[in-house]
Amino acid sequence: MGKHVMGVLVKNHAGVLSRVTGLFSRRVFNIDSLAVGTTQDPEISRITIVVNGDSYTVDQVAKQLDKLIDVIEVEHLYKEESVTRELMLIKVKATSQNRSEIIQLVEVFRSNIVDVSATSLTIEVSGGSSKLEALIEMLKPFGIIEVVRTGVIAISRGE
Amino acid sequence: MGKHVMGVLVKNHAGVLSRVTGLFSRRVFNIDSLAVGTTQDPEISRITIVVNGDSYTVDQVAKQLDKLIDVIEVEHLYKEESVTRELMLIKVKATSQNRSEIIQLVEVFRSNIVDVSATSLTIEVSGGSSKLEALIEMLKPFGIIEVVRTGVIAISRGE
Repeated sequence: MGKHVMGVLVKNHAGVLSRVTGLFSRRVFNIDSLAVGTTQDPEISRITIVVNGDSYTVDQVAKQLDKLIDVIEVEHLYKEESVTRELMLIKVKATSQNRSEIIQLVEVFRSNIVDVSATSLTIEVSGGSSKLEALIEMLKPFGIIEVVRTGVIAISRGE
Repeated sequence: MGKHVMGVLVKNHAGVLSRVTGLFSRRVFNIDSLAVGTTQDPEISRITIVVNGDSYTVDQVAKQLDKLIDVIEVEHLYKEESVTRELMLIKVKATSQNRSEIIQLVEVFRSNIVDVSATSLTIEVSGGSSKLEALIEMLKPFGIIEVVRTGVIAISRGE
């Protein structure tokens, strides 16, 4: 068992996302995260999926994905051979008393403040999932209002 | 017509993602991007969807989404009242001759180099979609090898 990251290149046709997620649903596979974005080719999107499972089952799912209409390529991205990143927007309670303390944390985590109100701060941060989890933990005592995450994307190392 | 961003809070149950994407598929609605990530509550995920359509149709889809099993809340995030961001990993051809030129671009775009090989550079950048598009344009002459994007996430402004 473990987390597996899969990159699925698909044609940008209506229904392809539904077919891909439907396959996981029928297999009662839990998707940890899923992100869909365009590529350099506007006709082609890339779905990055993180699933929990053993290697054998993940390989079986990869084969099933490969057979779906509008699926061009399925790639298994191994941890040691790829860069994985995720983006998070997090809104936290902030007062004039503790705002500077939060700003210090933001700097340590090389993150950015993207919105400020009299009672809140919104922070943008990207990195590995563990970095994002660490920032959430550090911000919890201030009172987290909202967390929005993209899910993981990954790219293979080297050319 | 225009781009609409919707935030959908869902219970982390198998099949919910398939139901949500299925709804869009049946309506022949083109999803521009879709991102699913966990929230501060491990039982709840948030799906951010960008769709193209007129306001009336988008409202109808929001109502349909609201009726689905395991959907907790549907939020329409208006451009003026929210912060939207996206993350991209982009791999580009680089030689010892032009590497420093690319690194300069990376600095201008406040992006980071996350991997280097003898013949390539991989860059991580977050921002609005137009910033990401601009960086892609600037890197095209060097030769783009791969682009992976998370799709857009959004958070409302203020508390």
